[in-house]
Amino acid sequence: MAKNEFVKEIADIETDFPQWYTDVVLKTKLVDYGPVKGTMVIRPYGYAIWEHIQSELDGRFKAMGVENAYFPMLIPMSFLTKEAEHVEGFAPEVAIVTHAGGAKLEEPLVVRPTSETIIGHMFGKWVESWRDLPLRENQWCNVMRWEKTTRPFLRTSEFLWQEGHSVYETGEEAEAETLKMLACYAEFCKEVLCMPVLTGRKTEKEKFAGAVATYGMEAMMHDGKSLQAGTTHYMGQNFAKAFGVQFTNREGVLQYGYTMSYGVSTRLIGALIMTHGDARGLVLPPPVAPFEVVIVPIAQKKEGVLEATHVLKETLEKAGIRVKLDDSDNSPGWKFNEWEMKGVPVRIELGPRDIEGGKMLVCRRDTLEKQEFALGDVAAVKDLLAAIGKDMYDRAKARMQSRIVPAETLEELLAGVEGGNFVRAGWCGDRACEDKVKAFAQATARVFDESHTMQTCVCCGKKAAHTLFFARAY
Amino acid sequence: MAKNEFVKEIADIETDFPQWYTDVVLKTKLVDYGPVKGTMVIRPYGYAIWEHIQSELDGRFKAMGVENAYFPMLIPMSFLTKEAEHVEGFAPEVAIVTHAGGAKLEEPLVVRPTSETIIGHMFGKWVESWRDLPLRENQWCNVMRWEKTTRPFLRTSEFLWQEGHSVYETGEEAEAETLKMLACYAEFCKEVLCMPVLTGRKTEKEKFAGAVATYGMEAMMHDGKSLQAGTTHYMGQNFAKAFGVQFTNREGVLQYGYTMSYGVSTRLIGALIMTHGDARGLVLPPPVAPFEVVIVPIAQKKEGVLEATHVLKETLEKAGIRVKLDDSDNSPGWKFNEWEMKGVPVRIELGPRDIEGGKMLVCRRDTLEKQEFALGDVAAVKDLLAAIGKDMYDRAKARMQSRIVPAETLEELLAGVEGGNFVRAGWCGDRACEDKVKAFAQATARVFDESHTMQTCVCCGKKAAHTLFFARAY
Repeated sequence: MAKNEFVKEIADIETDFPQWYTDVVLKTKLVDYGPVKGTMVIRPYGYAIWEHIQSELDGRFKAMGVENAYFPMLIPMSFLTKEAEHVEGFAPEVAIVTHAGGAKLEEPLVVRPTSETIIGHMFGKWVESWRDLPLRENQWCNVMRWEKTTRPFLRTSEFLWQEGHSVYETGEEAEAETLKMLACYAEFCKEVLCMPVLTGRKTEKEKFAGAVATYGMEAMMHDGKSLQAGTTHYMGQNFAKAFGVQFTNREGVLQYGYTMSYGVSTRLIGALIMTHGDARGLVLPPPVAPFEVVIVPIAQKKEGVLEATHVLKETLEKAGIRVKLDDSDNSPGWKFNEWEMKGVPVRIELGPRDIEGGKMLVCRRDTLEKQEFALGDVAAVKDLLAAIGKDMYDRAKARMQSRIVPAETLEELLAGVEGGNFVRAGWCGDRACEDKVKAFAQATARVFDESHTMQTCVCCGKKAAHTLFFARAY
Repeated sequence: MAKNEFVKEIADIETDFPQWYTDVVLKTKLVDYGPVKGTMVIRPYGYAIWEHIQSELDGRFKAMGVENAYFPMLIPMSFLTKEAEHVEGFAPEVAIVTHAGGAKLEEPLVVRPTSETIIGHMFGKWVESWRDLPLRENQWCNVMRWEKTTRPFLRTSEFLWQEGHSVYETGEEAEAETLKMLACYAEFCKEVLCMPVLTGRKTEKEKFAGAVATYGMEAMMHDGKSLQAGTTHYMGQNFAKAFGVQFTNREGVLQYGYTMSYGVSTRLIGALIMTHGDARGLVLPPPVAPFEVVIVPIAQKKEGVLEATHVLKETLEKAGIRVKLDDSDNSPGWKFNEWEMKGVPVRIELGPRDIEGGKMLVCRRDTLEKQEFALGDVAAVKDLLAAIGKDMYDRAKARMQSRIVPAETLEELLAGVEGGNFVRAGWCGDRACEDKVKAFAQATARVFDESHTMQTCVCCGKKAAHTLFFARAY
């Protein structure tokens, strides 16, 4: 019966993954569509996930010495044009404020699509000496990129993110920080989202507009497609020159700084949904789940049941576990389905017989396995939550590894990506070959494979300069 | 010597308070001007204060059952016009996006000046039954109001705030929540910002555009002017009717809900600066100070001094105290001035003789009093921080109370506000009298005084309907 209920509610994950995704994000009330095309409302159940992501990442940044700040959202249009590649990349997708305070503005203002330009301008005002460096600031804010096709969390005109921006004395330091932040992101994905990622460098075609080098992390979604989950950028002196970020160096000579930036967004919520979700709906990683445990009373009108569930809730909460007690009038079966769809990692059922026997029935959302714990055994619940997180990561990691396949020819590459794999292939380094692969297989270069195991270019057959991961991507 | 140094740095607080404020916020690096007129950059030292404000308030909201969400920033222009008073109040100061994605938009979009309209629209989609109520959501976000004269934190085109929005079944519940949130704000100001406020209802002239009733809290600045520090609004069914927020009530009848909203912003940072600051600069309330304690090593090149300061820092941090150790090459005198200007509540000086004697010299920022504590006495430092907070509040409260004066005539009222007081005066309730007071005394009606002690209208001499506080205001 339970099975039938969600068949009605959400599309089949294997045969119609896009519709499954839409059904799940709307029906679990993570998100809703905003009134303006391409916008989303992040509802409390979704926003709570974002708050956990923020809190976990922010702590990591602060431990690394990064400080938070806030820069204005409106950027003079002229700023964008100061870095030639940057304006080319972002001008087509910006939203523009032309009128304000009842009058036409002298200069149109761009709603930030990213803040390298305005932060570069301010850093140029603030940095004077090598003693001011490194300067490492981060902001949590909204950004806007006008997109033609949108999907909640994955691609919306407005989204929430963090963007970190740093200036260093040397290019080596700035590039080292770019890799360090990529590693920080990947570790965060593993430990907090239970989500494995492939990390590496992006091709020139795929890099950030204005960067010397972009590094990215790619996660494998349920359908085998890739999702870019975060990027870090080494800018060299490009933005420092455009915005006059100069300092007197240790030799007393005025020189330009070296900058880098890094960002992850509410897209991560889409990534974790599409990594861990199953036929019944969401499967949330315990570290970011709004509720780690849901308690469902059985025969809740019987004397003592509701009281016992309240006591259990308090006991678990005192131990720092986030708990929902569903004492609504709905049937237990309805509640099981509801909270399974909503992906709560652990469900505890508690009825008169359990209470009498000093037990509770504990059900894992990820495997649907049930086991009995002693009633109120907080340590066992904590261990189980940790085990769920680890198992979710291990399964996702094994799945991703089993779906990385090599290709020596374009046909093999096409078959690979059609089969829902990441394809490892040699690449000569030419943009023309990258373009041909894209046209032939509708697959894009994701990141370089550091292991460099492929010898010849999958496209032209010349000696490979790099080994690249190709995939179809969100 | 120390005294002379800040005389050079910041304007005199008594004779040129506006310039003192500008000097302090810029030189302590709380804030900088953004490139677009009327915008501000909140720098790390200022943003850390905002983070503490957020964290403290957010915890209070969550404890009351309010959930966080995020609504889109761009609002269709047509939404604004659905509530007649609302559009009249906000249309003149909105920023408008007319172009996006390389094309002109069909309908111009307003950058939210506040979100009653778009949240009303979404609540209209979500609310169906009385079982869905109350619905209580809050968002932390940026908003934009194009202002002619601006000042960092106090009035800028873009600022950060929280806005809470709720729907209730009955007007009584919604109005009770409006008062409850006002009380929550006032308690927060007392406990976290150490700042007393006057609370009460706003006049029709001063209320929120579209509200039935607005309540506000007013804080007294160093120059005796008032600053509106937060407001809560009871909307009746105005917005529910404009946006179709309807539900089936307990009798099975479809009816409109009753809504309310409430907000405080980064303006609170300006309020606490102008409440507590003194001739030397900032005096920060311990609960929101980025650093509660600064440690200044004395004769830091002497063996053992830096080591001892590091140990002390760790000891204090382990107890949850936020500590800055200034081991830079600057002289102790320079550091004293710097951290006094930056308002750190407690300075600890530690030199060879202190270490030898097992003591540390502890200096309060608020009173500049010094005392000796046993080296590493965490409990004494914690007690001192609590005492500082309490004393800051008590002093500010006594000052405000001593500067609330009654007026029976317009001349008395003028003398009162010119002397830097809040003036308590009777008011007949007519807008014309309120306008006349404003023209005569350049003072505005702040909030109703619940004690209602004045008998006749200060302007027309008729029977007073209310007792109002008048003040010059920021």
